Amino acid sequence: MPLDPSRTVAELKELRELTGDVNGAQRVAWTETWETARDWLRDKVAETGASEEIDEAGNQWFTLRGESDRALLIGGHIDSVPNGGWLDGCLNVMAGVEVLRRIASDGTPPLTVRLVNWADEEGARFGRSLFGSSAAAGSMDDQDELRARTDANGVALPDALREHGVDLDRALDARKQLEGAVAYLELHIEQGPVLESLGLPLGVVLGTFGVERHQITWKGQAAHAGSTPMDKRRDALAGAAKLALEIRPIAAEVGDGAVCTSGSVVCKPGIVTSVVETAEQLLDQRHLDAEQLARMLSLAQEASARFAGEEDIEVSWERIWSIEPILFHDGLIELAEEAITEVCGTSHRLPSGPLHDAAEVARAGVPTVMVFVQSLRGLSHTKLEDTKEEHLELSVRALDRLAAKTLVRYAKEAA
Amino acid sequence: MPLDPSRTVAELKELRELTGDVNGAQRVAWTETWETARDWLRDKVAETGASEEIDEAGNQWFTLRGESDRALLIGGHIDSVPNGGWLDGCLNVMAGVEVLRRIASDGTPPLTVRLVNWADEEGARFGRSLFGSSAAAGSMDDQDELRARTDANGVALPDALREHGVDLDRALDARKQLEGAVAYLELHIEQGPVLESLGLPLGVVLGTFGVERHQITWKGQAAHAGSTPMDKRRDALAGAAKLALEIRPIAAEVGDGAVCTSGSVVCKPGIVTSVVETAEQLLDQRHLDAEQLARMLSLAQEASARFAGEEDIEVSWERIWSIEPILFHDGLIELAEEAITEVCGTSHRLPSGPLHDAAEVARAGVPTVMVFVQSLRGLSHTKLEDTKEEHLELSVRALDRLAAKTLVRYAKEAA
Repeated sequence: MPLDPSRTVAELKELRELTGDVNGAQRVAWTETWETARDWLRDKVAETGASEEIDEAGNQWFTLRGESDRALLIGGHIDSVPNGGWLDGCLNVMAGVEVLRRIASDGTPPLTVRLVNWADEEGARFGRSLFGSSAAAGSMDDQDELRARTDANGVALPDALREHGVDLDRALDARKQLEGAVAYLELHIEQGPVLESLGLPLGVVLGTFGVERHQITWKGQAAHAGSTPMDKRRDALAGAAKLALEIRPIAAEVGDGAVCTSGSVVCKPGIVTSVVETAEQLLDQRHLDAEQLARMLSLAQEASARFAGEEDIEVSWERIWSIEPILFHDGLIELAEEAITEVCGTSHRLPSGPLHDAAEVARAGVPTVMVFVQSLRGLSHTKLEDTKEEHLELSVRALDRLAAKTLVRYAKEAA
Repeated sequence: MPLDPSRTVAELKELRELTGDVNGAQRVAWTETWETARDWLRDKVAETGASEEIDEAGNQWFTLRGESDRALLIGGHIDSVPNGGWLDGCLNVMAGVEVLRRIASDGTPPLTVRLVNWADEEGARFGRSLFGSSAAAGSMDDQDELRARTDANGVALPDALREHGVDLDRALDARKQLEGAVAYLELHIEQGPVLESLGLPLGVVLGTFGVERHQITWKGQAAHAGSTPMDKRRDALAGAAKLALEIRPIAAEVGDGAVCTSGSVVCKPGIVTSVVETAEQLLDQRHLDAEQLARMLSLAQEASARFAGEEDIEVSWERIWSIEPILFHDGLIELAEEAITEVCGTSHRLPSGPLHDAAEVARAGVPTVMVFVQSLRGLSHTKLEDTKEEHLELSVRALDRLAAKTLVRYAKEAA
């Protein structure tokens, strides 16, 4: 069966009809709608002859045996956020199905080819993203914490998983799935504006950003807005305001795609008649280079200390979360660039801001690369998420070529 | 009975015992505790021979007949906020009681002297401050709106007032109380840090600030903190941050005691992973000069438009509330300065940031002045509010001298 990218687009629409509503996609992991999507996927793959297996973390694997047991993996996630878009996650899965069809129709491949539909990438129900891929990668180290998690209705995570055949205590047994994997490929919508602004359909992803996420607390003195002269104030908001602006020259100085975001400032007492006593500020900093990320954090911390001094206020930092940058595989980046250039003439290298299952697989030591396809207006996690159909088709072609090139490369190495 | 300022301090402590608890003063207007305080006040004044009258707005008047019907008014408010301080409001009333005692013991005064305990200066229960004084001044123009107000327990304002003998529909009949008034004097704690920072016990108040209060809404574009390059962002927080800092040079440029406060910025969606789409900012600007206040507002508006342009975001302004500056009486300011200088050597002229009942009386055309006594750490509306006892005693002496001087001045004019 020759590759037919228009079929992928048609199948994505079919899935949207089956599992979405007027508000968007509703394939939240560990729900009936999600199971409906998984059943539908099983039917779609059946014709390729690939065998299905659900692993201990709920990941859905389809395996097409090759001449070697060593395996090329192609992965995505069919789960979505509530009221999600029609492409985030499932594009990768459905493009993978099409590639699997093409490979199967070409006869026994030199390597085993496996398509994986990761369980609960989004973490929409329990706030724990990358569930299935982190279990398979062996990096899931928060099982005690997960046991205590509940959804909005008070249902415990382990109980919800059990209804879908997953025993949290055994989830890490999914690690054996990555044994023998030689490469992992993932196609995803960009979820950002870069490719659209460059007028390019496709790009190759260098890795996922390292992230430093902090809450910064500024402490001044509440004082009456009418009776306190300007020079007698200790205004916590002034510190937060200065830092909200300073992170921009800091990102520019560090460069190489550095991004810094202050997503919230909460003022207390937060009333019109009082100078702000406490300002709680959120800061998110990302970079593809661990040293540059550390430098960016330290520049922001130095600036905050300077501002606290200028304003006679106090500042303290608390880390909310952090992750190291995860770099993709140089050889696969080159192959992806070739594949993209062949299907649309021009490629572009860019980092991924959001995390993806691919980052977990890469962390586990499997050579990994991702391909991004342009997102219209950079929107995702909303029903407004969209990508031009011609770009979707190009993305299926690029993934297919990348898979073909990877099979050739690793078959040689295996030989 | 000679003036005994130490008695005022003792009586303030007695009132605190009677109507406060571990959390502070609890004399919220239109409550039983407030009535307890008013009954207690009645007993304190009785010995002076002044006659009591409760007017249609609930104001409690004590009248000491003089040779003329023309009247010198001394006023304060015994109501407090919940968990309030021991001085805000009642210092004025109790100092007035002591002055009334002294005047009464000196024989029939040349003018009638009246002490008024204004009803509900704080507006703590229904959110409408200066209730009694605005009714007496004839400036209460929101009765329709007041009819619909309820407290935190859903009790309607007119019902609560009725329990204390006040018919909202007749409140404006209290206007006749200001007929024949030649002057109004009010002593209050400063509720700010100026006198303490100058090391002065007392100051004379030039008037109450005009206030311009706005909500400023900045609209940018929500965008993923990881996938949106810095130069593709439209960050609403950047506009709010710039303005929060810019109001300071604007206040400095306008000068003459100008104050500007940004008391809150609310960010939406307000999450660590998104550029801020909407920032709702509160701005409070105050000046004693109407033209300078208007200039300060217009400078802030111009700056906001400039920032919106720089950041490619939108900005809109909505007025929450405003009031004109209310200037006190030049002749009385001079008398107050003399009185203060006589009791403690040095006076200082300052504006009042907070509004006071005195502003309502002045708006009604009665020559008015206020005396401020130092507040420790500028604190008020908290049980931590405090003033040195020696300063409280000086403030009673200054009010007494001011009353004496005013009687002489206006008795001459009446003659």
